[in-house]
Amino acid sequence: MTGRDVYIRSAASALPGPPLDNAALAERFGMDALWQQWVDVFIGTASRHLALDLDSGKLTVSLADLAEEAGRTALDRAGLAPGQVDAVVLGTATPDRLMPATVNVVADRLGIDGVRSFQLQSGCSGAVQALDVAQQLLRSGSARTVLVLGGDVIARFYDLDTDLRATAPAELVNYVLFGDAAGAAVVSTEPGPGAVSVRALFTRLVGLGREPGAVLEWFGPADRDSDRPAATEDYKAIEKHVPAMAGEVLEELLDGLGWAREDVDLLLPPQLSGRMTRLITEGLGLPDAEAVSCVDDAGNCGNAIVFLQLERALARLAGGRRAVGISIESSKWLKAGFALEGS
Amino acid sequence: MTGRDVYIRSAASALPGPPLDNAALAERFGMDALWQQWVDVFIGTASRHLALDLDSGKLTVSLADLAEEAGRTALDRAGLAPGQVDAVVLGTATPDRLMPATVNVVADRLGIDGVRSFQLQSGCSGAVQALDVAQQLLRSGSARTVLVLGGDVIARFYDLDTDLRATAPAELVNYVLFGDAAGAAVVSTEPGPGAVSVRALFTRLVGLGREPGAVLEWFGPADRDSDRPAATEDYKAIEKHVPAMAGEVLEELLDGLGWAREDVDLLLPPQLSGRMTRLITEGLGLPDAEAVSCVDDAGNCGNAIVFLQLERALARLAGGRRAVGISIESSKWLKAGFALEGS
Repeated sequence: MTGRDVYIRSAASALPGPPLDNAALAERFGMDALWQQWVDVFIGTASRHLALDLDSGKLTVSLADLAEEAGRTALDRAGLAPGQVDAVVLGTATPDRLMPATVNVVADRLGIDGVRSFQLQSGCSGAVQALDVAQQLLRSGSARTVLVLGGDVIARFYDLDTDLRATAPAELVNYVLFGDAAGAAVVSTEPGPGAVSVRALFTRLVGLGREPGAVLEWFGPADRDSDRPAATEDYKAIEKHVPAMAGEVLEELLDGLGWAREDVDLLLPPQLSGRMTRLITEGLGLPDAEAVSCVDDAGNCGNAIVFLQLERALARLAGGRRAVGISIESSKWLKAGFALEGS
Repeated sequence: MTGRDVYIRSAASALPGPPLDNAALAERFGMDALWQQWVDVFIGTASRHLALDLDSGKLTVSLADLAEEAGRTALDRAGLAPGQVDAVVLGTATPDRLMPATVNVVADRLGIDGVRSFQLQSGCSGAVQALDVAQQLLRSGSARTVLVLGGDVIARFYDLDTDLRATAPAELVNYVLFGDAAGAAVVSTEPGPGAVSVRALFTRLVGLGREPGAVLEWFGPADRDSDRPAATEDYKAIEKHVPAMAGEVLEELLDGLGWAREDVDLLLPPQLSGRMTRLITEGLGLPDAEAVSCVDDAGNCGNAIVFLQLERALARLAGGRRAVGISIESSKWLKAGFALEGS
């Protein structure tokens, strides 16, 4: 890496509709109180927002809608106009369409034009991958300010006709783990008021010889009638591997920076589920770190979640406080981490 | 940009099955000789390869299969082992799945692990966008060698039950314009034998206030029964805008480098269709440039096409010859260009 410093100047989020708690989900799918308790205890996610009207089954907003809202708020908070953005990067697993890329629709709506734009097809560490691409653009000298976006509309995988009582766990978890959201951050080589320094940020594929922990299919004209499942999770594999991988990311960040565990003031942990997040946070052994977690209320928002965490964390880093963020992608196993320091 | 030089060390391609000419397509879809002549004259693409068995309607290979083959060949040609790759970038409009990203499946198969990986959701200039991300990784100092991949399996949009006689032109063109393929290139800060210098490379979104020229939908569990068309092209808008945009890319490249039109030895033109490529090539006014075109035989291979052109061009740049490449994405209007110089 070259010596150019990179700063996060702002972060923002956009959530669709009111929160849906487990009781509401249970009622909609005709599940009983025991099922609701199972979700409360073993998943530990209390509510989520969905871009879907549960009565009509219609989508209420698109990823572009959510990303536009988050992007506009992030630019406002950074005090920047669309013309001051040199590049736009968006990460998502669930683009509105295969083409045009959602990032370009959002750029159009925000009035951003004539610049580089990239859309990453990415999973739960996609926000860090998008921040990584932005970092490369800034450190290479290709851009001074990048709008980074991430989000998912998993509601497109909610089949409201599904009988959850007859659904295998590998598919069932998708109805309770996730939530819809988009987030945004403005990253720049020029610090502004309240900006925090990006001291380290990396992503790393570690999928060699490993089966996917999660699969999300799309269907085209030729295979619409296929009966293969659209979304499956190997939740056991995820429960087993993610805590260890989170520990490895933490070690790599601290070793690289020469930080001690006691130096970490804020922890942005992986956000698979409320329960997993608590287990991972306890296991990391950061004695003085407050955890910044959104998964209890917003579910696992995929590519949005790190931006939701950043939105809550940035102001709390004033006075030189330090944060570590950890994100794991289980679909083909990626590790991602970053370290921030307030000014 | 920093002063680090970037080189393309090798390029490769992978095409599925035998070429399918317009007569074979006409026969399969029950179209007559006049239709075949229409394709010959107004599209001007003679054949294409499809990852589809036209008799059974089954896909024969996946994008991962094609990208693996191209990637392995490119590494072999560069004389590099998988462990010497610091990052992998893939561009595609048609990933095998939404998750895991195809790039990570390919990396696993090639034995690449522990490095950054990115998959771009991109259209016809996606190869240049992927090369651009690689360039950023190299110039920032984050990587020394990047394997860049691109490809598409548009065959997933071939509905063999379609009555082409009853299909609107906006959908019909998709059955004749495209072909399936993947390509690869090894880019590095370290030149090897036969490497060419990347003297310039940019991508630029110019979609402000413009309607999409092409739309490619995906379907999930909630909208499988939707009757909206899966793939549409505004071919008239494309015919109108792409030649002018190609001219703008050429001007920007030549101006930036101080090259005269007479300095260009090879032209890698946009590859929408055989006919459009010839029109654009003639209109660009490069008196001494030989055109390197693959679209006549391979169709518009989307994210693969620039790699097919590079594979044919690299050896012809020996002795300090110069090439200009131009790529236009019409789904939301991106311009992309690059300039190469042999050693």
